Amino acid sequence: MKRKNIPSITINRLSIYHRCLEKILETETEKEEEFKIISSFKIAEMSGINSAQIRKDLAYFGEFGKRGIGYPLIDLSRELKKILGLDKKWSVIIAGAGNLGKALAKYKGFQKRGFVIKGIFDNNPLKIGKKLDHIFIYDIKEIEKISQAENINIGILVVPADSAQEVADKMVAGGIKAILNFAPVHIVLPPETKVHNVDLSIEFEGLTYYLIS
Amino acid sequence: MKRKNIPSITINRLSIYHRCLEKILETETEKEEEFKIISSFKIAEMSGINSAQIRKDLAYFGEFGKRGIGYPLIDLSRELKKILGLDKKWSVIIAGAGNLGKALAKYKGFQKRGFVIKGIFDNNPLKIGKKLDHIFIYDIKEIEKISQAENINIGILVVPADSAQEVADKMVAGGIKAILNFAPVHIVLPPETKVHNVDLSIEFEGLTYYLIS
Repeated sequence: MKRKNIPSITINRLSIYHRCLEKILETETEKEEEFKIISSFKIAEMSGINSAQIRKDLAYFGEFGKRGIGYPLIDLSRELKKILGLDKKWSVIIAGAGNLGKALAKYKGFQKRGFVIKGIFDNNPLKIGKKLDHIFIYDIKEIEKISQAENINIGILVVPADSAQEVADKMVAGGIKAILNFAPVHIVLPPETKVHNVDLSIEFEGLTYYLIS
Repeated sequence: MKRKNIPSITINRLSIYHRCLEKILETETEKEEEFKIISSFKIAEMSGINSAQIRKDLAYFGEFGKRGIGYPLIDLSRELKKILGLDKKWSVIIAGAGNLGKALAKYKGFQKRGFVIKGIFDNNPLKIGKKLDHIFIYDIKEIEKISQAENINIGILVVPADSAQEVADKMVAGGIKAILNFAPVHIVLPPETKVHNVDLSIEFEGLTYYLIS
């Protein structure tokens, strides 16, 4: 099956499986890992997703495991990384040099996972031309030109709500194919552009349950 | 069954179901909503979680639906909100007035969902005593005392990695029962304290799949 014909919900689940495997690999010692086989039942237990569904999702991408035995842990993890595009380096820009934009630019976790911030863009003349750590702050007017020239893959949108659509349009014009939207507003883009809307308040969920006595 | 005996993975799934229902309620018109019944199959389709699992998870908390028909959409959403503690206001403090701390303090989405930021704490004398929007910045030494006095429920940890454990301990000493940890380090706390480690790079996942041609 062609990549783009795989249901997006399957991709979301692959992400979840991959995180489960990473969690196991983090906690196991290196020697043990090498020989580890993981069953769809174990992934089901960790992810909350039904094991038949897991086998079906993985089967879209080939024969990874042995029926009745399981999947080789390291191979499956590596394969999922590849499928999800997490084994590559991606070029990222940030639009908006406010507090959140600056925090994201300095966020160590991105670089570690292969997301390299190539520039920040803002409309504030006091910020333009300065550097944040080693990242240059450009005029937001240059977003299209620089995205094109630098072959940027992903744009992070942290501008105020009322300019989010305009800036997103410029990202798309500059060839950006995926946008991570922190702006609290719905943006409309061509169907081939992937948008993920981030809602940080989701991080609280699952915590408050335990606060009720 | 007692709340604390429900498996934590069930709670995570309830969160997912709740978000699915919210998504439907956002997109439907008000008039239609009132009469809507939602089946476990529809929630399964949206969440990727098996419908038998969904029925089992919901059954922990009572008889919400009618066998063979489904669940009343609005009632179930309201009920899940209540179970998850999302119908209440929670008092939150932020430790760390760096870029991310400041961004989180100003983040509109928290207030909207009932998470009220009661104070920010930092060790920088230039920041202590100032205000960020309407939120006071206190000396980090006061975190225990103020958490206790103000009955704070949740602490957000955005301090550097090397002081995360120490500050988290102070939060716990101040009576805080749940911590949202943005610091890139593992913290060890008493079993009755809930910790959720935030990894923002997860937001990129599911996007990069579509960038591979």
